Amino acid sequence: MNYQQILNEIFKELKSGDNLGYVASYIPELAKINPDNFGIHLTTIDKKEFKVGEWDTKFSIQSIAKVFALSQAYQLVGDKIWERVDVEPSGTSFNSLVQLESNHGIPRNPFMNAGAMVVCDILISKLDNPEEDFLSFLRDLTPLGEISYSETIAKSEKAVGYRNIALCNFLKSYGNLENNPDRVLDFYFNICSIEMSCQELSFAFLYLANDDFRSSRNLQVLSMSQAKRVNALMQTCGFYDESGEFAFRVGLPGKSGVGGGIIAIHPDKYCIAVWSPRLNEKGNSYRGMQFLELFTTRTESSIF
Amino acid sequence: MNYQQILNEIFKELKSGDNLGYVASYIPELAKINPDNFGIHLTTIDKKEFKVGEWDTKFSIQSIAKVFALSQAYQLVGDKIWERVDVEPSGTSFNSLVQLESNHGIPRNPFMNAGAMVVCDILISKLDNPEEDFLSFLRDLTPLGEISYSETIAKSEKAVGYRNIALCNFLKSYGNLENNPDRVLDFYFNICSIEMSCQELSFAFLYLANDDFRSSRNLQVLSMSQAKRVNALMQTCGFYDESGEFAFRVGLPGKSGVGGGIIAIHPDKYCIAVWSPRLNEKGNSYRGMQFLELFTTRTESSIF
Amino acid sequence: MNYQQILNEIFKELKSGDNLGYVASYIPELAKINPDNFGIHLTTIDKKEFKVGEWDTKFSIQSIAKVFALSQAYQLVGDKIWERVDVEPSGTSFNSLVQLESNHGIPRNPFMNAGAMVVCDILISKLDNPEEDFLSFLRDLTPLGEISYSETIAKSEKAVGYRNIALCNFLKSYGNLENNPDRVLDFYFNICSIEMSCQELSFAFLYLANDDFRSSRNLQVLSMSQAKRVNALMQTCGFYDESGEFAFRVGLPGKSGVGGGIIAIHPDKYCIAVWSPRLNEKGNSYRGMQFLELFTTRTESSIF
Amino acid sequence: MNYQQILNEIFKELKSGDNLGYVASYIPELAKINPDNFGIHLTTIDKKEFKVGEWDTKFSIQSIAKVFALSQAYQLVGDKIWERVDVEPSGTSFNSLVQLESNHGIPRNPFMNAGAMVVCDILISKLDNPEEDFLSFLRDLTPLGEISYSETIAKSEKAVGYRNIALCNFLKSYGNLENNPDRVLDFYFNICSIEMSCQELSFAFLYLANDDFRSSRNLQVLSMSQAKRVNALMQTCGFYDESGEFAFRVGLPGKSGVGGGIIAIHPDKYCIAVWSPRLNEKGNSYRGMQFLELFTTRTESSIF
Repeated sequence: MNYQQILNEIFKELKSGDNLGYVASYIPELAKINPDNFGIHLTTIDKKEFKVGEWDTKFSIQSIAKVFALSQAYQLVGDKIWERVDVEPSGTSFNSLVQLESNHGIPRNPFMNAGAMVVCDILISKLDNPEEDFLSFLRDLTPLGEISYSETIAKSEKAVGYRNIALCNFLKSYGNLENNPDRVLDFYFNICSIEMSCQELSFAFLYLANDDFRSSRNLQVLSMSQAKRVNALMQTCGFYDESGEFAFRVGLPGKSGVGGGIIAIHPDKYCIAVWSPRLNEKGNSYRGMQFLELFTTRTESSIF
Repeated sequence: MNYQQILNEIFKELKSGDNLGYVASYIPELAKINPDNFGIHLTTIDKKEFKVGEWDTKFSIQSIAKVFALSQAYQLVGDKIWERVDVEPSGTSFNSLVQLESNHGIPRNPFMNAGAMVVCDILISKLDNPEEDFLSFLRDLTPLGEISYSETIAKSEKAVGYRNIALCNFLKSYGNLENNPDRVLDFYFNICSIEMSCQELSFAFLYLANDDFRSSRNLQVLSMSQAKRVNALMQTCGFYDESGEFAFRVGLPGKSGVGGGIIAIHPDKYCIAVWSPRLNEKGNSYRGMQFLELFTTRTESSIF
Repeated sequence: MNYQQILNEIFKELKSGDNLGYVASYIPELAKINPDNFGIHLTTIDKKEFKVGEWDTKFSIQSIAKVFALSQAYQLVGDKIWERVDVEPSGTSFNSLVQLESNHGIPRNPFMNAGAMVVCDILISKLDNPEEDFLSFLRDLTPLGEISYSETIAKSEKAVGYRNIALCNFLKSYGNLENNPDRVLDFYFNICSIEMSCQELSFAFLYLANDDFRSSRNLQVLSMSQAKRVNALMQTCGFYDESGEFAFRVGLPGKSGVGGGIIAIHPDKYCIAVWSPRLNEKGNSYRGMQFLELFTTRTESSIF
Repeated sequence: MNYQQILNEIFKELKSGDNLGYVASYIPELAKINPDNFGIHLTTIDKKEFKVGEWDTKFSIQSIAKVFALSQAYQLVGDKIWERVDVEPSGTSFNSLVQLESNHGIPRNPFMNAGAMVVCDILISKLDNPEEDFLSFLRDLTPLGEISYSETIAKSEKAVGYRNIALCNFLKSYGNLENNPDRVLDFYFNICSIEMSCQELSFAFLYLANDDFRSSRNLQVLSMSQAKRVNALMQTCGFYDESGEFAFRVGLPGKSGVGGGIIAIHPDKYCIAVWSPRLNEKGNSYRGMQFLELFTTRTESSIF
């Protein structure tokens, strides 16, 4: 399959078309990004690389970090994690409090904000130095460059993150947090503030594509069963209230972030990261969704 | 892969274990079925067959019929179907009216009862003799035996189907039905009453597994893109409020019915039908779920 | 208190102002009414009458009939009625199915459509000839003229009342109806189709204003405790999702109908009926609400 | 009317009956109260006093403070207050976040926790020294004794008030708070911590019973129209999800608090305060509800 040529073609087509939607503005720092950035990086399981555009510019990975957090917590506590967070798609927006009320404090899945906060709570309880240890976990996955938190982004989000503060205290009121909500929020905002490039992301997620579920540094990250389950979760819940649409149009497990990044996994084949900051009305990258739909159609690589 | 041996092993293991749950009792006729029936039939895309237990006993396919109905409507009207029904998982029970109210009459997906009623409405409008033409469509898919409606089941369900009557009139009140609710309900209850065996089902669904999306009689049923989308929909929405769980544990697109049947598709490999009438609390076959989880684990054939 | 002068003044003021809103159009027959009809009739507990405008034109009383139905059922079965319908304001629209789902088939109060259907079901079970006996009950309350059902209105409503059909079947699905939903709907549409004038209404409701709770013909309709409870229910639930607003601005127990009628009770003083067909966005008479607010302000006769 | 004799009789009857329910335990300090306290104090508009039991023991007035806060804010900003909080009963629990989500940050009424927080926000913006000035307002209403905040109670509630923290940040996320959520919560917990006796309460609320709407010290607190509207709000929304029940059984405007206190107003007649710490399942005083139902029945003083 001539991935590079297909990347180039679709990139060119979309570049010349409309770039609709808005850069996420609720986090003031994110609003400063140039909305016309557009990069793609694909890594195959045998580590061949294909890339186009701003593939090596770092951007705020935001909710994509939830997949890393889930993976590390899953590695640490195993299936006990599912006692505190469910595995069902939500049918509501990513920061809905309604769902949490009707499920008595059990988030529907680990990719909704509330679910990710429960995962953060587990990491805080289990890791000696949560911020450091989480970064080490990431560095093992992507030995390409320096990965770090963006204090500016984390602060910016915290200053106006009233809804996330509400969610986190709501979780605590149901007894589904061990740690103080302020601590959980700090960690949550920190991991969402991490900056990575498309290249770093497509390398980092190889552990979900490889058939031995090892990282690019050859560390075993998850068991086969665990990795398949993380993929299944991304397929059903990775795109907020557009998860069905993504499965329908793209046909790969994936996860998006409000920074405009999307990663998608083709088990046994490749991992692809796309970045374009303008978001559609459901909060997912406008060009990212378009790109991946065209890509899996032309490469006939939907998993379905 | 020695499918037959694996089928036999799992069958034996589960037979000797608990068979929990209850046969669906809200349709009086269904409650008469022997709850210990248990059959499996797998057909590979090159038409090799593997089977065990009551694989050739006919049973009420119930909601599995929704996949056939969707496929026929998709064939007839193409993507216009998505103007009247969405493609997102629901996060609520299969017969919830709440969801319909908050989405102003657009069902979340074609596998919820309300969504299937919209699909039925389309078929009634497009087919000359809906009941006959739908049966012809099925007979083309499975040339193995006689397929027909069960008047007894359809009547039995209609007599007490107050909630479905409510749903259908609710849809009509939003203007999302062209035909009279009574007519739509008749057709809906009719298609759900169809009786097929595991063998017939695993043959019939080959058009979703074959890479040319042809039926076992070699008719083109859907385009590649359409077939992949139907599979994606089954993956995200096929098991009511347990769709995430099924993706998580089994890792195949599939669809269940309250008659205790489940079909699952492995694109490019096989189609499998399982039948065991006792249902878990989410309304899916208790043993069917267990069987498929063990099966994809041992054959390592989850798509993720 | 010079009621007549105050009626005249407010009538004149409002006549010269805007008459906003729309005549209810979901019942085709209702849409034919002249929207500028405007009548008021007040009867004191010592049977003095004050009136202005179209006070003796008959109109479709619609939901005002729910108060009569509740009173008759209360008379027949006493407090057992509250086992099947609650007494709390709903916080949702009059024909919401959501509320019914979260309360497992128990309507929030007898003035929501679902609650009134349960009341109708009780009357059908308890009365020998429901339609006739209900009319007799009304004729005893208002011996002024002929009262009867409007077949045209009832038919018109039935033909398009999909949402009410949905509600009624939904109730049945929860087991909260003894009779067949079709029969309950017939009776429900019939009582809502009754036509009365403002004069007839203000006489008919004297049993809720008199301190002996007798009708204008001196029949004991309810016990003191029962009458006070019906008034309390009208105060908290009589105006759909505008009940708080009505208490807030008018300060009397009352009940509105989509035909544009409103009745309000001042215990120990008077009963007033207002009619003006244009409805505000909450479904209550635009001028009726205005009239009553000005009236209780100028007569200082809010009960609060 | 021999109020004293009736108070004595009912007091005696209830004392010898069951005292069911539980003292509020979610605020640790409240759980320390002797659950058998039981006091009543009635003040007529001509300042005659009737009392029985622990009528002069101070207790935590909790949500009863919301009526004082609303009155002061209403005095300060007039009807502009209704741009930020609605006047409709909620149909959900006092601390529900669901309602707030579906109403985009506008609380249904000023007696739900979220509504009271908006009122607190207004007071913080308008008063020079909010805590002091609110206390002065109260001292003007009840010149009987010393009134003050309980630091212990306020702290105790704040330490575990995760759900209220959630609510307050949720409000802020919708832009319906001018001040910082932490400041609003402090003030909110402070006013709820105020301790008063039944005697002090029945005096303090005279401004809602007197026909000139003056306080016991003869200060004009609200206009007639404002006072009637506060009463109407208490009637429709004063008892959380039991407001309809209270109107139905007692028939007076009133307000309860989780400290076990209830006040009720008979316009033009009297103000009554009851205190008994055990709460029914809806969060209202078990004996308080019983007492008031018997009291308005025997004195025939429901307003309906």
